[in-house]
Amino acid sequence: MMVERAVVLVSGGLDSATVLAMATAKGFRCHALSIDYGQRHCSELEAARRVAAAAGVAEHKILQLDLRPIGGSALTDRSIAVPEHSSDGIPVTYVPARNTLFLSLALGWAEVLGAWDIFLGANAVDYSGYPDCRPEFVRAFEELANLATRAGVEGRGRFRIRAPLMHMGKAEIIRAGMELGVDYSLTVSCYRADEAGYACGTCDSCRLRARGFAEAGVADPTLYRC
Amino acid sequence: MMVERAVVLVSGGLDSATVLAMATAKGFRCHALSIDYGQRHCSELEAARRVAAAAGVAEHKILQLDLRPIGGSALTDRSIAVPEHSSDGIPVTYVPARNTLFLSLALGWAEVLGAWDIFLGANAVDYSGYPDCRPEFVRAFEELANLATRAGVEGRGRFRIRAPLMHMGKAEIIRAGMELGVDYSLTVSCYRADEAGYACGTCDSCRLRARGFAEAGVADPTLYRC
Repeated sequence: MMVERAVVLVSGGLDSATVLAMATAKGFRCHALSIDYGQRHCSELEAARRVAAAAGVAEHKILQLDLRPIGGSALTDRSIAVPEHSSDGIPVTYVPARNTLFLSLALGWAEVLGAWDIFLGANAVDYSGYPDCRPEFVRAFEELANLATRAGVEGRGRFRIRAPLMHMGKAEIIRAGMELGVDYSLTVSCYRADEAGYACGTCDSCRLRARGFAEAGVADPTLYRC
Repeated sequence: MMVERAVVLVSGGLDSATVLAMATAKGFRCHALSIDYGQRHCSELEAARRVAAAAGVAEHKILQLDLRPIGGSALTDRSIAVPEHSSDGIPVTYVPARNTLFLSLALGWAEVLGAWDIFLGANAVDYSGYPDCRPEFVRAFEELANLATRAGVEGRGRFRIRAPLMHMGKAEIIRAGMELGVDYSLTVSCYRADEAGYACGTCDSCRLRARGFAEAGVADPTLYRC
């Protein structure tokens, strides 16, 4: 039996580590993709390497795409501070067109690999402020993927953009990952993590994560700066 | 009166030089975007610089996005030869998800600039083999753009993906550009151009271009290797 391949976007955070475990559990031969986009928190990429290795992926690629010349986000422009608490609406940590870009790179690679399934950790519960984490975005990208590519147009198959965490809360995600054996101590979620991957404990992403562990009744393995 | 900004994808080729002239003629303040994606024909980027400067753009950005690790195209993988003549179907010079990626980058920049208009040189007449040069692809991307972004979601405006060459033949494109004062000697179309920008004269792209000048009744300014 042919094992189906999948491309999985792996950021080094908790969500994508869970998605990778889910894709692996479904029997896909997983090709992990991470993007070095000039993010502040580059310890994410180290975390992505650890997560991909622990999951036993077929391959892990880190592509260089420096978004700093475009800017417009606290994550890529050092003149915009990452706030302690987000205000209403779309947060300053929103990176313009980021998921569109990452999915486009995943799509290009999937086409070369002959993979039809692309997994990402988009989540509309905790990231309702991010337009490119919503189900309508994912559906529109899937539509585009099948028009944009040789593979899609030739009709040998159909690309599927899979966002299995879309409607899950953080605690639910953590419980699902624990059942699949995810080691969350390998992951980094903090927007302001230091080079060694130690978390600030106070940014939005840290607080969301800590609350998730608490609600899931799981000991928080995060390494915090004191 | 506020001058509207536009992001224009400029490859250094004949088509995008024409599109840039059209956008400028429409009164847009143009921000040119080129992508250094590891293409064989890097003299394209030199041509893009000349074209953008000649058009008097507000700004010209060249982003680095090395697609060679993904491969899958004769333009990014040196183990795949650029053929003299294309066979039927989608040519080996097709780069997986290229226009999706380029439009995503243009979209991210447009959002930061506050621009709603993105121009590209997609053309379904001469490039019918490329799935991402068709009107349905452009429409799907426009749909996505307005779901994927803060600007689109907040409803302050609507992104428009403009592909004014979509239904024009090469001679028609050249005539339109000549009327707008485009200097085609600045452009490079050859898939196998050398570092100085000299064209092979025999690849698909060269032949299409040469035929365009002949049909338009315009002297071909291309520099050919002899």
